[in-house]
Amino acid sequence: MASKTENINYKLPSGFDIELLPGEKRLEQHLIDTIRRVFESYGFTPIETPAVERLEVLQAKGNQGDNIIYSITPLISEDRTEESSSDSRGLKFDQTVPLAAYIARHLNDLTFPFARYQMDMVFRGERAKKGRYRQFRQCDIDVVGRGSLSLLYDAQMPAIIAEIFSAVNIGKFLIRISNRKVLKGMFRSLGVQPEQIKSCVKIVDTLDKVGVEKVKKALAETGISLDKSDRIIEFLQINGSVDEVLGKLTAQGANLDNAEEFSQGIAELQQVIEGVRSLGVSSDCYCIDLSIARGLDYYTGTVYETTLLGYESLGSICSGGRYEELVGTFAGETMPGVGISIGLTRLMRQLLDAGILKPLSSTPAKVMVLNLQNHLMSTYLQVSQLLRASGINVVTEFSQQAIGKQFKRADRLGIPLCIVIGDDEYQAQTCRIKVLASGEQIDVPLDNLVEQIQKLI
Amino acid sequence: MASKTENINYKLPSGFDIELLPGEKRLEQHLIDTIRRVFESYGFTPIETPAVERLEVLQAKGNQGDNIIYSITPLISEDRTEESSSDSRGLKFDQTVPLAAYIARHLNDLTFPFARYQMDMVFRGERAKKGRYRQFRQCDIDVVGRGSLSLLYDAQMPAIIAEIFSAVNIGKFLIRISNRKVLKGMFRSLGVQPEQIKSCVKIVDTLDKVGVEKVKKALAETGISLDKSDRIIEFLQINGSVDEVLGKLTAQGANLDNAEEFSQGIAELQQVIEGVRSLGVSSDCYCIDLSIARGLDYYTGTVYETTLLGYESLGSICSGGRYEELVGTFAGETMPGVGISIGLTRLMRQLLDAGILKPLSSTPAKVMVLNLQNHLMSTYLQVSQLLRASGINVVTEFSQQAIGKQFKRADRLGIPLCIVIGDDEYQAQTCRIKVLASGEQIDVPLDNLVEQIQKLI
Repeated sequence: MASKTENINYKLPSGFDIELLPGEKRLEQHLIDTIRRVFESYGFTPIETPAVERLEVLQAKGNQGDNIIYSITPLISEDRTEESSSDSRGLKFDQTVPLAAYIARHLNDLTFPFARYQMDMVFRGERAKKGRYRQFRQCDIDVVGRGSLSLLYDAQMPAIIAEIFSAVNIGKFLIRISNRKVLKGMFRSLGVQPEQIKSCVKIVDTLDKVGVEKVKKALAETGISLDKSDRIIEFLQINGSVDEVLGKLTAQGANLDNAEEFSQGIAELQQVIEGVRSLGVSSDCYCIDLSIARGLDYYTGTVYETTLLGYESLGSICSGGRYEELVGTFAGETMPGVGISIGLTRLMRQLLDAGILKPLSSTPAKVMVLNLQNHLMSTYLQVSQLLRASGINVVTEFSQQAIGKQFKRADRLGIPLCIVIGDDEYQAQTCRIKVLASGEQIDVPLDNLVEQIQKLI
Repeated sequence: MASKTENINYKLPSGFDIELLPGEKRLEQHLIDTIRRVFESYGFTPIETPAVERLEVLQAKGNQGDNIIYSITPLISEDRTEESSSDSRGLKFDQTVPLAAYIARHLNDLTFPFARYQMDMVFRGERAKKGRYRQFRQCDIDVVGRGSLSLLYDAQMPAIIAEIFSAVNIGKFLIRISNRKVLKGMFRSLGVQPEQIKSCVKIVDTLDKVGVEKVKKALAETGISLDKSDRIIEFLQINGSVDEVLGKLTAQGANLDNAEEFSQGIAELQQVIEGVRSLGVSSDCYCIDLSIARGLDYYTGTVYETTLLGYESLGSICSGGRYEELVGTFAGETMPGVGISIGLTRLMRQLLDAGILKPLSSTPAKVMVLNLQNHLMSTYLQVSQLLRASGINVVTEFSQQAIGKQFKRADRLGIPLCIVIGDDEYQAQTCRIKVLASGEQIDVPLDNLVEQIQKLI
C-alpha cells in the first residue's frame, strides 16, 4: 500500500494550514460555543450561506474582490449544456456579500430588523504569509433594517464583545469606539477636499506607529496646511473618560464651521455610549478613540476595534461598525446595518502562540473504563452506557494490553478518571475509580458509581 | 443603488441551493448539536480539515474522484513563483481522503485507536439533480487503529446510530447489519470466480427492486448456474431474529466448501451482535440483513444501513462499515477502521419535505422586551440584561412602533413571551408578561421576573 502513494505530497497547500490537533479543535469548538451563546442571548439567529456563489455576485461591489477570489471549475469539464459562461462560480471571500445576496433571495421570508450570526469559512486567494490564511472562519453578527435602524443596535455591539471576551477569559481588553462622521466631519469642517479625505484618514491611521512628526509631514505632502494638521493632531489626541471626550468634542464643535456632520457624529456617539452604559458594560472595558480609521470605505457611523491589553501587537481582535449601503445591494433597497466580526482562525492561532489560551484535552471523554478481563466485557459496556445515560462522556478500552498501558493511554488522551473492574470487584458489584492526576483510588458500589463520578468531574 | 446591481443574478448556482431559512438552520444546528453530543459521549473527538487539498491527495485513490472534483484557481493568476503546477488544488469530495491525509500529517501527535468525528462541508461537481447537492454537510465518525482494531468498535456503531435517531425523534428506524465476508465468502464457496464477485454483488443488490426472477436471469447471464443462483437467493432471503439468522448461517456454513471466509464473517457478525446487545440497543432497532451490498469496493467486514420505517424510499439515512485499506494510504501503514456517515444536508431536506421534522422558530430568543415609552429605554435594557444573565435569550424592541405591531413582530419571530413595562409598571417596579400563544397576562414584581419567566419557558 505504501508503495502506491509514497510519492504523494500530502502536506496542506500553502495558506490552508489551518488544521488543528484534537485538543486545539476542541478549544475552537469551545470558543465557537461561547460566541454562539452570547450572540443568541441577544436574539441573533444563525444562517449559513454556501461557500460558492456566482462570480457576478462576488464581484458586485466593483473589482475590489477580484484579486482574492478563487474561481471553481469541475476538474473534468463535461459538456454541460445547462451551464453557460454566466454560471461562473467562485468561493466567498467574506460574509457581507453573501449576506446581501441571502437577504435578496429570502426578502419576503425574513423579519426586519434582521439579526443574524454566521460562522462560515471564507476563502481568500491572497499571497500566503505567516498569520494570513487562505481559508478561515469568521464569526460575524449583523443587524439589518429596512430604511432605518435604531442606534441602540450599535450600543449592543460593545456589550456583546465585552461578554464574549470576558467569558473566554483571555485577560483585559479595551473596546475602542468612534464614529466615522466625527472624523470625516472634522476634515470637512477644516476645508479638506472630499477627494482628499480618504488619503488623510489613511495617514492619521498610522499615528500610533510612526508618530506625530511623520504624520504631519505626510499631511503636508497631501496639501494640508501646518495649521490644519496641528488641529487634526490635537483632535486625534483627545482622550480621557468617555464623558470627558464627549465634552471636549462638543467644545471643538462650537469652534468649527460647517459642523453639521461633525455634530451629528457626536450626537450618535453620545447615544451609543448612553446605551452601552445602560447595558451595564464595565466602564474600563471601553473608551472613545477618535483615531480608529478602520474601513472608511463602507462604514458610515459607529466603528469599533478591540485591543487585548498587553498584546496590542495582535491588532484588533474584534472590529466592525455601522454601514448604510452594504447589504441592500441586491435587494435594491436602503438597508442600514451594524455588525462586528471576529476572525476566529487567526485569533485562536495568535492566542495559542502567545500562550494566552491552551489546548483542551484531546478527547471529550472524562472517564475510561479499563479492560482487565476480557470475559467481563459486557459489564464494561454496561457500566459505560450507565455513565453515558447520565451525560458523562466515556471511552471503553477494548484492547487487552497490560493495565499500565491502558492507564498511559488514558493519560495521553487527557482522561482524568479510570474505572477498574476485575473479578473481585465484579463479584462484589463494586468498582475502583482511579483519579489519574492524584493517583487516588476510590472503591464504590456500582450503584453509587454515577453519583461518585459526577462529584469527581 | 438598485440601478448598479439590477442586472446581477443573485440566485444560488445550481446544486448549491442548500441555504436554509433561520428556523430551518436552527433545526439543523439542533441536529448537529444532538449528533455531536452522542458522538462525544463515546469519546469521539472533533477534527476539521480544510476544504482545499492538493489535487494529488484527492486523486490518490485512483481516478474515481476525478469526475466530481472541483479545482480552484485564483481568478487573477499572478506570477506566483512559489507555486508550481504540482500545487494544483481542489475541494474535498468526502471526509475519508482528508482523514487519511490528516492522520499522515499528524501521525506522531495522535493517540490510537484514534476516534474522531467530522462535520465539514464537502463538494462534488456532479450533474445537478433534485436531492443531489454539490455542497453538503456530512457527519462522520471513524475509529482507526494501527495494525489492528477490536470488533467492539463495530458494535458501538449501531448503539450510536440508535441513540442519535431516538434523540431526534423522527419515528421508528431499523439498522441493518451485515458482514461483507459472509456474502463474499458464500460466493467464493459456491465457486464464483473472484473477478465475477463484484458484478454478482451488484446484481443481488437489486433484489429488493426487481424481484427474484430478474436477479436469477441476470446471474445466469454472468454465467452462474441455476443451481447456484437458487442457493444465492435462498441465502439472501434468510431472515428472522438475529439469533435465528446466525443459526441458519452457521447451518449453511456446515454445507459449504472452502468456507473459511464465510465462517470468519459469521464469527465477526456474532461478536458484533453480542456487543450491540451488551450495549443495550433495543432489539427492534436492528437486524441482520444479508442483502446489504453497500460499497463493496472498500468495506471488508461489518456493514450498516439504516432505514426509516414507513419512509423506505428515502434510502439509507446512516451507513458505514469496516475497512482495512482506506486511511493508512498516506501514512503507509495498515490502519483498519470502522465508521458511519450521516448525509445531514440531504437528510434534513428530506425530513422537512416529508413533514417528519418541522423548522424551529426563526430566532433563539424566548422573550421580547417591548418599547412602550422611549424614556424608559434604560429600564428595558437593564431588564433584558437581567434575563440574559440567567441564560434567557432576549430581544429588546427598539422601534417606536405601535404596541400591536411590536406584538406582531414577536409573533412572527416565534418569540413566546413579551414583557410590557409602561409608566405605571415602572413606578410600581413591576412588569406585565404576555404569553402570546394563550393571550394570558401576568403581572409580576421586577424582583421575581427571572423566576417567573423561567417557569413559563
